Amino acid sequence: MDAISVIRAKRDNGRLTDAQIDWIIDAYTRGEVAHEQMSALAMAIYLNGMDRAEIARWTAAMIASGERMDFSALPRVTTDKHSTGGVGDKITLPLAPLVAACGAAVPQLSGRGLGHTGGTLDKLESIPGWRAALSNGEMMAVLADVGSVICAAGDGLAPADKKLYALRDVTGTVESIPLIASSIMSKKIAEGTSALVLDVKVGSGAFMKDIAAARELATTMVGLGTDHGVNTVALLTDMSTPLGLTAGNALEVRESVEVLAGGGPADVVELTLALAREMLAAAGLPDADPAKALADGSAMDHWRRMILAQGGDPDADLPVAREQHVVNASSAGVLTTLDAYAVGVAAWRLGAGRARREDPVQAGAGIELHAKPGDQLVAGQPLLTLHTDTPEKFPYALEALNGGVLIAPKGTEFEPNAVVLDRIG
Amino acid sequence: MDAISVIRAKRDNGRLTDAQIDWIIDAYTRGEVAHEQMSALAMAIYLNGMDRAEIARWTAAMIASGERMDFSALPRVTTDKHSTGGVGDKITLPLAPLVAACGAAVPQLSGRGLGHTGGTLDKLESIPGWRAALSNGEMMAVLADVGSVICAAGDGLAPADKKLYALRDVTGTVESIPLIASSIMSKKIAEGTSALVLDVKVGSGAFMKDIAAARELATTMVGLGTDHGVNTVALLTDMSTPLGLTAGNALEVRESVEVLAGGGPADVVELTLALAREMLAAAGLPDADPAKALADGSAMDHWRRMILAQGGDPDADLPVAREQHVVNASSAGVLTTLDAYAVGVAAWRLGAGRARREDPVQAGAGIELHAKPGDQLVAGQPLLTLHTDTPEKFPYALEALNGGVLIAPKGTEFEPNAVVLDRIG
Repeated sequence: MDAISVIRAKRDNGRLTDAQIDWIIDAYTRGEVAHEQMSALAMAIYLNGMDRAEIARWTAAMIASGERMDFSALPRVTTDKHSTGGVGDKITLPLAPLVAACGAAVPQLSGRGLGHTGGTLDKLESIPGWRAALSNGEMMAVLADVGSVICAAGDGLAPADKKLYALRDVTGTVESIPLIASSIMSKKIAEGTSALVLDVKVGSGAFMKDIAAARELATTMVGLGTDHGVNTVALLTDMSTPLGLTAGNALEVRESVEVLAGGGPADVVELTLALAREMLAAAGLPDADPAKALADGSAMDHWRRMILAQGGDPDADLPVAREQHVVNASSAGVLTTLDAYAVGVAAWRLGAGRARREDPVQAGAGIELHAKPGDQLVAGQPLLTLHTDTPEKFPYALEALNGGVLIAPKGTEFEPNAVVLDRIG
Repeated sequence: MDAISVIRAKRDNGRLTDAQIDWIIDAYTRGEVAHEQMSALAMAIYLNGMDRAEIARWTAAMIASGERMDFSALPRVTTDKHSTGGVGDKITLPLAPLVAACGAAVPQLSGRGLGHTGGTLDKLESIPGWRAALSNGEMMAVLADVGSVICAAGDGLAPADKKLYALRDVTGTVESIPLIASSIMSKKIAEGTSALVLDVKVGSGAFMKDIAAARELATTMVGLGTDHGVNTVALLTDMSTPLGLTAGNALEVRESVEVLAGGGPADVVELTLALAREMLAAAGLPDADPAKALADGSAMDHWRRMILAQGGDPDADLPVAREQHVVNASSAGVLTTLDAYAVGVAAWRLGAGRARREDPVQAGAGIELHAKPGDQLVAGQPLLTLHTDTPEKFPYALEALNGGVLIAPKGTEFEPNAVVLDRIG
């Protein structure tokens, strides 16, 4: 077996055999196959695809490259959520303690942001004292005690995926359904959850810009999960505009706490409850009532215990950016577009995200939205507030927003997208 | 400008702009663009292609990555030949001194073999004392004195190509017409020859397995040469069976000397003369008579002077392999196939070629052919003699030959392929 013959097989639009897949993933993990060989193969996969059996084997080989977690000693059934990433997507923050409050165990191994989408760990790190890095033992202890934990994934899970993901990131091979699906599912299956709900985002702020591609990705992932004995469903959800009214680390924590307190923006509440119901049903708890857990304070109680257990102070003041700039509506009418990608890039440029893996993020930076698509506007009313510690970035953020805000004349009929577009599973 | 945006442009089947091509070739040469990024781009080019203007710019950028040679001080016009490589292709050896004997200057910057095709330098190094590595000054002196020189290309010519070729070799991106054409032509144009004849091989032992692909490659390269002011023509020639009756380093030198002595296999003589006539015509010497230069000993005289000038002894005994194994005809009939690829791989396994760039080659290893397609055979007559210093390799060589020799029943009509299949220019 050698790398060139595997690359050629896929380059020439053939199927990779099980033996070829097992060998190349293992040899790449060990460093025997070079980065430049794997990137050529990744581009060939990007352009020529993989069939369902190839994706399943590729996923299994990535799982086999590392350790697997085992939650079977927990008294509660585990249920997990994965989002493909979007702008203002803080759902994990209220969702994990909410589902724990309803009786399931939620081990959320999360990541940091890169590019225009934020990272769950970056958001939580704006809470003074909170620690993302837990040992396996610490993680299990929080999970056993609180019922939910949000922490960084260890290096031991699917190391092949870790290496391949970093490679894809610099070689223009990220947006491939077989590679995205196998990357997500190898980590989630290695985590050992028994139920999984996938939030597949669709729209300008998501990987998947159109619903057909999102449906294909969701179907592929649900198939992979099911084949590995994980009870898996997917929701396709709208990412044409940011979720909620904030994009940025501390700003999103604040909004998440509002949701846990029984308030918060309608779309965030709707999606949090929809995902919670799916997670509970997939875990065999279809009768749990997450709306009640939001209303009666038990979700908030679990949030506070979870933050405390990881060294955070749930009562601390959250960081606020040093400078603000308000963008007003240029005309009266109906807001028809508040583009997720434009807002995401603007928030990133303000300091909420990072361009390189080693960059720091600003806890207070980001964007507050004062209106959502479908809202009636009067000319000059505040539309967005930009927050940053580096005000020299305001012009670049405004440039990113250029064309991302559209206002139609008063009286124009306009129907905003639904929050949940489809369900697969 | 960044590597990912260039990769994405080609991945998404777009045209690369002049600025993108200039930047990525320069940045890759300088090490700013990583190998894994260039290999992803090479695979995208392999699968999505480049149009003529892109290939021209890519070639120009590779030329611009290094120095250019200048032969304008020579009293003779320079003319050069390039072969895309085949099995038993020793033509450069008799051709260069032959064309020099007819009045042109022939600067043959050549390479070593990798895989199943031999390298001109490997062949000449079987001559005791002969040196491939010359300084530019030494090269010019041999050229001025003898009229022909065959030596290793310096590191200064098209360094981008050198780096990219090594990368393509390990990433399954060799057999791409835009990449092959730009690789060959960047070196040849940087060499500064005024006339160039391309020998584009077609058949099992060549890069190009079918004539349509070979014609496309030839047309692309002739266009590139012409656009850069090099008088360029191409011959498409048969590589379904080895050229001549030998494949292997010293074996091929011996056959080349036979041709220079006025003998040698008919196909080698025919192709040598056809290429010599094209080289001389392209150099503005259409009335020169290479057949006469073979017959009257002047080509041989130039060969001897050229070998001597590079430290070689033209009268020395050539190395002979320690062991021989004869393969006999299994039945009587007409030899219809003696497959070039099978013979090339067998010769390689016997030690004539190398698997890795740093491997040594055996001077005496290789294969002698005792018959050519179209010949009538009697059962049991010697067909091939295998030569090697490592007889434990005989079984692997025989395995490579399996299926590569076909004998049709006596009386079967069979017309062997012509040596020269087409001419483009």
